[in-house]
Amino acid sequence: MNIFANNPALKSWLEVSAQSDFPIQNIPFGVFTDENDRVHIATRIGDYAISLSVLEELGYFIDIDFDGEVLHDETLNAFISEGKAVWRAVRNRIAEIFEANNPKLRDDAEARAEVIFDLDKVLVELPVYVGDYTDFYSSREHATNVGMMFRDPNNALLPNWLHIPVGYHGRSSTIVPSGVPVHRPVGQSLPKGETLPVFGESKRVDFELETAFITTDANEMGQRVPVEKAEDAIFGMVLLNDWSARDIQAWEYVPLGPFLAKNFASSISCWVVALDALEPFRCASPVQEEPKPLPYLQQTGDHAFDINLEVIIETESGVSQTVCKSNFKYMYWTMSQQLAHHTVNGCLVSSGDLMGSGTISGSEKDSFGSMLELTWAGQNPIAMPDGTERTFIQDNDTVVMKGYCEKDGVRIGFGEVSSKLLPAIPFVK
Amino acid sequence: MNIFANNPALKSWLEVSAQSDFPIQNIPFGVFTDENDRVHIATRIGDYAISLSVLEELGYFIDIDFDGEVLHDETLNAFISEGKAVWRAVRNRIAEIFEANNPKLRDDAEARAEVIFDLDKVLVELPVYVGDYTDFYSSREHATNVGMMFRDPNNALLPNWLHIPVGYHGRSSTIVPSGVPVHRPVGQSLPKGETLPVFGESKRVDFELETAFITTDANEMGQRVPVEKAEDAIFGMVLLNDWSARDIQAWEYVPLGPFLAKNFASSISCWVVALDALEPFRCASPVQEEPKPLPYLQQTGDHAFDINLEVIIETESGVSQTVCKSNFKYMYWTMSQQLAHHTVNGCLVSSGDLMGSGTISGSEKDSFGSMLELTWAGQNPIAMPDGTERTFIQDNDTVVMKGYCEKDGVRIGFGEVSSKLLPAIPFVK
Repeated sequence: MNIFANNPALKSWLEVSAQSDFPIQNIPFGVFTDENDRVHIATRIGDYAISLSVLEELGYFIDIDFDGEVLHDETLNAFISEGKAVWRAVRNRIAEIFEANNPKLRDDAEARAEVIFDLDKVLVELPVYVGDYTDFYSSREHATNVGMMFRDPNNALLPNWLHIPVGYHGRSSTIVPSGVPVHRPVGQSLPKGETLPVFGESKRVDFELETAFITTDANEMGQRVPVEKAEDAIFGMVLLNDWSARDIQAWEYVPLGPFLAKNFASSISCWVVALDALEPFRCASPVQEEPKPLPYLQQTGDHAFDINLEVIIETESGVSQTVCKSNFKYMYWTMSQQLAHHTVNGCLVSSGDLMGSGTISGSEKDSFGSMLELTWAGQNPIAMPDGTERTFIQDNDTVVMKGYCEKDGVRIGFGEVSSKLLPAIPFVK
Repeated sequence: MNIFANNPALKSWLEVSAQSDFPIQNIPFGVFTDENDRVHIATRIGDYAISLSVLEELGYFIDIDFDGEVLHDETLNAFISEGKAVWRAVRNRIAEIFEANNPKLRDDAEARAEVIFDLDKVLVELPVYVGDYTDFYSSREHATNVGMMFRDPNNALLPNWLHIPVGYHGRSSTIVPSGVPVHRPVGQSLPKGETLPVFGESKRVDFELETAFITTDANEMGQRVPVEKAEDAIFGMVLLNDWSARDIQAWEYVPLGPFLAKNFASSISCWVVALDALEPFRCASPVQEEPKPLPYLQQTGDHAFDINLEVIIETESGVSQTVCKSNFKYMYWTMSQQLAHHTVNGCLVSSGDLMGSGTISGSEKDSFGSMLELTWAGQNPIAMPDGTERTFIQDNDTVVMKGYCEKDGVRIGFGEVSSKLLPAIPFVK
């Protein structure tokens, strides 16, 4: 596959630092509001937010066969509904416009002033309206760790896990963009050794390091998305912090799964990295031979992506500590398998739906994607540089997740999803 | 509370049969499309669909303090966002307009022709856009029955059940209105005694008899809805058939809950009965003394409603059998407790969100709200009048759920949620 925008030799006439996640080869999609309260469909190069809405008005996309109105919406959903050929054509066109030797916009000061915004002067928004949010549980290491702690160390992986990309429905209404703080939740939990629950602030607020993919209109209700066509229905990826209150979760989750332990907030990074942009970083996922999946989940070729992931905890006074380094390629089940499974019963998947990977843990202890695993349920606290320790997340800590790919001198990244945990709101019945 | 529209003495100048679910005291809200493809916000009296959109244009609501534009939308969501005082004022106004002695519309043939539609000449639509769908599990009898069959007969109720209105997130995208047929899903299941799953058509497609409530914008993210204020955030109720594939469910549901076993379809009745209309049928719910719920779930007064429910199976040849008679008042947890619990952690609840009750089973065998319970996992088939038997639902059976309240000669009903189970779509990988 030869995608113009992916050419490692491309340079932009916009200034991009060497360590930026957003060189001209990235061209993610997002949404921002400018200082005059105008909402723009956008991309990002370096530290510039670029209005695709204005570029459309100026005629830069006129020869691409799609409805230009979708670039004047307040979310990416309508643009995503246009389909992969349009995403690709628009992304390639953006690469052309900002390519170092193209003078058209570069030398048009008036147009530049309308199109290009300093990132620190705009508000980057949630990129899509999420109709339905699904969260999978597809890291074998994570499922094994949790099974060992919560259930039986000798039978950590449940019997269905190697056959099913296990997933469940999450809450769409509380998906928030990077930068929005989150309050510590209150709720019920069962103190150790007790038989009656207590009510109060969660004492075990945790992050879960995940990625998520955003779909287009993938099927009609009743129809399936075959595994080999599933990637065509994936628009792009973001980072996801699946906030979790472990004490609430342990008490509530049987038999219908996590509910209030998760639905107080889920934070995502704001720039959707197109699956096309990740193409150069495609790689193998873990072998699935024992057992082989059922035929509808079997696929050939490489369907993972080599995305370096890390989690940093920052204290209120600014001390920070990297607590996890993981990689998306550790996932046992691929995104295409997740989507094929999700639709095998005819479940309707639409533009803007968000599908979380599940916590991405590797096999090494420092690659575990949650405090639950990193501290082994609180037994092994993590030392912070200021001498304090963390078992779970403390009030006013900020959790930052980052992700990037790197190859042939090109770094394609997600920026970050950063969110501060605020104290619980005092409870008045 | 004195609500004009609830007066049992009211009669309408529109013809309403004595057994109709929709006398002038009901005045539910809904949406229909007419023969010219115009979408109307609507109510129903007898077998007439009444356009509130046209009534608004004609000035019938001009002195009510709300944005009349909400009656020109394609769903009820914006109207619901206007809040309880507006719902009540509009409902009372409709009762005035159609009251037998009010000549204004009655004697205006031209306006009548624009406002009133024969039900069989319009298409009744899904009444709301469902942003988030939650399903609870709040019938003690149902939870006990399922626990006895799937887990431990001696400890059927899980330890959290009497403390938490257990719930989980469902799929919004596959909520369909009454009348839309549903295909038998395919998926994985584990044959009895086997260790490896098989793939194929579900052999245990079941209904679950539920009601559901539809909320308004109940809170801001991070805020709670106190139990004693929760009913103000409930717009109204519908019937819900929570289609379930039991064999898929049994294999997939551990540890994160049901997923593909449920998300292929959930069917609802189309006319939303206002909570105000149910006021005369308020009654006590089961005593919660052993144990008492935690304080945030404690409430005084009556918060159940005496709603008779039944399920009928109709075969393709038109033979029908009532298989279940239950009542909404059997629910252990009330709707206000469910909503208070849902938001205690700050989870955002918005206009149009749908919250299912969970299967409504009573203590008698013929009041169990699913085939799983009625046939005790298939052991005791139900005899049909044509000599056939049912353990679960067969292809081309139609499942019809009905619900109504009756008191002082007034019958307030939900109509029905009726959906035919079509054969599985042949699977081609």
